[in-house]
Amino acid sequence: MYFSRKDILDIASLSVEEMTHILDTAQGMKEISLRPVKKVPTLRGKTLILFFHEASTRTKTSFDIAGKRLSADVIALAKSGSSMAKGESLLDTVKTLEAMQPDVVVMRHGTSGAARFIAGHLKCGVINAGDGRHAHPTQALLDMMTIREKKGRIAGLKVAIIGDIAHSRVARSNMEGLVKMGAEVRVAGPPTMIPKGIESYGVKAFFSVDKALEGADVIIMLRMQKERMNNVLFSTEREYAREFGLSEKRVSMAHPDAVVLHPGPMNRGVEISDTVADGSRSAILDQVENGVALRMALFYLLSGGVRNADED
Amino acid sequence: MYFSRKDILDIASLSVEEMTHILDTAQGMKEISLRPVKKVPTLRGKTLILFFHEASTRTKTSFDIAGKRLSADVIALAKSGSSMAKGESLLDTVKTLEAMQPDVVVMRHGTSGAARFIAGHLKCGVINAGDGRHAHPTQALLDMMTIREKKGRIAGLKVAIIGDIAHSRVARSNMEGLVKMGAEVRVAGPPTMIPKGIESYGVKAFFSVDKALEGADVIIMLRMQKERMNNVLFSTEREYAREFGLSEKRVSMAHPDAVVLHPGPMNRGVEISDTVADGSRSAILDQVENGVALRMALFYLLSGGVRNADED
Amino acid sequence: MYFSRKDILDIASLSVEEMTHILDTAQGMKEISLRPVKKVPTLRGKTLILFFHEASTRTKTSFDIAGKRLSADVIALAKSGSSMAKGESLLDTVKTLEAMQPDVVVMRHGTSGAARFIAGHLKCGVINAGDGRHAHPTQALLDMMTIREKKGRIAGLKVAIIGDIAHSRVARSNMEGLVKMGAEVRVAGPPTMIPKGIESYGVKAFFSVDKALEGADVIIMLRMQKERMNNVLFSTEREYAREFGLSEKRVSMAHPDAVVLHPGPMNRGVEISDTVADGSRSAILDQVENGVALRMALFYLLSGGVRNADED
Repeated sequence: MYFSRKDILDIASLSVEEMTHILDTAQGMKEISLRPVKKVPTLRGKTLILFFHEASTRTKTSFDIAGKRLSADVIALAKSGSSMAKGESLLDTVKTLEAMQPDVVVMRHGTSGAARFIAGHLKCGVINAGDGRHAHPTQALLDMMTIREKKGRIAGLKVAIIGDIAHSRVARSNMEGLVKMGAEVRVAGPPTMIPKGIESYGVKAFFSVDKALEGADVIIMLRMQKERMNNVLFSTEREYAREFGLSEKRVSMAHPDAVVLHPGPMNRGVEISDTVADGSRSAILDQVENGVALRMALFYLLSGGVRNADED
Repeated sequence: MYFSRKDILDIASLSVEEMTHILDTAQGMKEISLRPVKKVPTLRGKTLILFFHEASTRTKTSFDIAGKRLSADVIALAKSGSSMAKGESLLDTVKTLEAMQPDVVVMRHGTSGAARFIAGHLKCGVINAGDGRHAHPTQALLDMMTIREKKGRIAGLKVAIIGDIAHSRVARSNMEGLVKMGAEVRVAGPPTMIPKGIESYGVKAFFSVDKALEGADVIIMLRMQKERMNNVLFSTEREYAREFGLSEKRVSMAHPDAVVLHPGPMNRGVEISDTVADGSRSAILDQVENGVALRMALFYLLSGGVRNADED
Repeated sequence: MYFSRKDILDIASLSVEEMTHILDTAQGMKEISLRPVKKVPTLRGKTLILFFHEASTRTKTSFDIAGKRLSADVIALAKSGSSMAKGESLLDTVKTLEAMQPDVVVMRHGTSGAARFIAGHLKCGVINAGDGRHAHPTQALLDMMTIREKKGRIAGLKVAIIGDIAHSRVARSNMEGLVKMGAEVRVAGPPTMIPKGIESYGVKAFFSVDKALEGADVIIMLRMQKERMNNVLFSTEREYAREFGLSEKRVSMAHPDAVVLHPGPMNRGVEISDTVADGSRSAILDQVENGVALRMALFYLLSGGVRNADED
């Protein structure tokens, strides 16, 4: 399959065939990170720019490692050291970056739609590494990769997404992707965190976590933003944990072979208990490992890596 | 021509022959960034240190990409993470860096003369990436490269530099370079921002922007420091734009084929209008593209790249 | 000798044979940094993560350069851009990093024991780049390398360590290493900065710097933490310098061929005078140069570099 897309901006715009092709490519990439020499020359001479406007360990590091394992030159810009501090517009900054002839720009930004906005003005590829509450497509794709790896398929699986659905770009991208791939998706969380009209995503909403977990093959826990918790019904983290956190007991309501995912960083003792986070059903570190492979696949596909590999 | 210079500290100390050799080398480097594999092994095994004491997106990123396209190892130091925070002297810091055997140290610093000071104490090459109000030679060289590329020559051209001449290291380096290369240079800006005795640079000073632009082949707009604007005659940005900003109408006073340059980041609607910044005469993104090539040329020339290319 | 250690956490756990093997390996590595092409492919395809929770120029840059000279991929994480800001536990952060398949994680942390704690949970190698007041083994090893290089041996030498012994991880690691290697170690400093029971390290404590320096072959000056000086007996830096600082006159009490070391950054005019710091006995820049070689050796030994070099 020839991958003709210039950008990866959200899950909504990807077809099932495209997502499957990305996941297949990522699965092939994964093996590279397990070799003694974790590097292939595929993207030698390609320039990747990481432009992060929000703090990030795992996502930025994951992209950084992914680019270097493909032998690309990775240029990381910190917000603090950027011209943004001098009041330059976002568009001028990215046009400037593009004039340096990168092949792919990865951007994380606090404003929904920021990645699509810049992609419309750039000739080079753009990967959205998270934009406001809108989308986090690489997280959803690596979650799908992990689910497919653990369960052998996505179609037909029961997937429960638990937490602050309303404010989570991870939730939104996962709902879009998993429904499209044929999963039965349920969401649950505090009433104020389940947006009205959520059913339009093709998911079922529950206010009871226990109900949502019944027979689930996959449980995706969301990070609870502590600063938001104070604004809702819960006076303490412990209270939130009791109502919506994932305990061993709650896991037992799911399918006996259920796997647990969390995008990280975790609030242990809030949305997830230590025993679940570190337990045998947890696929949380698999997600991180797969994240590198998934991002390698995207860099490869967007850079037209096939042809360059031949030239090397 | 054998390039025997250890450092690039300012334009004043470069001869016409040296500048021409740098521009010719940069023109050759430019082609590398347009290849599918944007990388040559020329500086493999060389170590370049980027030591920036002031925020910068474009300049630091440009040096970073330039070094990597030549296969050098690029080590970027942030001010925040540096020993300067522990009160170490600048000289001790750079002597320490030199003991790690770099080939070139690139430094940006808020104090005029800082680059010359450290260059006098280091055996390795030093490139001044901007020191206080003194000099910004790589910016002037990439401006000259862009002018030569667009107009075929520098000698005999009419070049207008508009804005805060007094506080601008870009203006100073460009005046020195362009006059030496045989251009007719005019400067214009608010009276408080045109230093007394500016004629000693061999330029003509105007208080009227319109006069300075008459028949100009090249217009170099300077960034207006907003914090400084309050200290002068202009109560609002709009008032500054009306008196000294570059509008379409004002461009029409220049030569019909005039090109417009700006070192960035731009204050759109202040020193330059949107239509000019994005118009057909704007060479602003060419400057950025040429900046990478120019810095590749300097790294190459200062590292004695010729010999290493043979060894590769 | 086959080097079977997974981590370098402190000096206390290294045997004389291991230290000697590390120093020998580092001496071989040093030559690489002096070549025109300062790079070998030994660790190509290895991933090194630098995880620094405290500001550092020289140590972080030294590790960065060391990794790149061996052709490894070096991933540097800044504290500010990390998930720690989101309240993630240190262990979750490093487990996440490990899931990205690094070969070695280098960590600096403000808490004593932090490196050992994470090493116990990670399968990959861990190098302690300084943990609280506990240990700074790479500093002690590069100091030993410098001493051996300058004096031909360590056993039998008289080494004086001067300054704030109590709060210095450099002092602790050097005492452990030098005593084990057979040196006669003396320490001196303000009474409040010489911990009770220091003799258990096998060193002799002096309150008079002059006494400690008598006949010394090596003088290791420690950095005076200015914020701590106010809490002790000295009302001014000048007073501290007079009592405990290393002046030319004081150096003359040591052996005529004595060498002077300092881990940097120096407080010139406080613990060390300009003339001593820049004088002919100073080995301070040798320490920095050796630091790169020493860290190359550790990366090499912990990554099992031998086998990979064969595969290249």
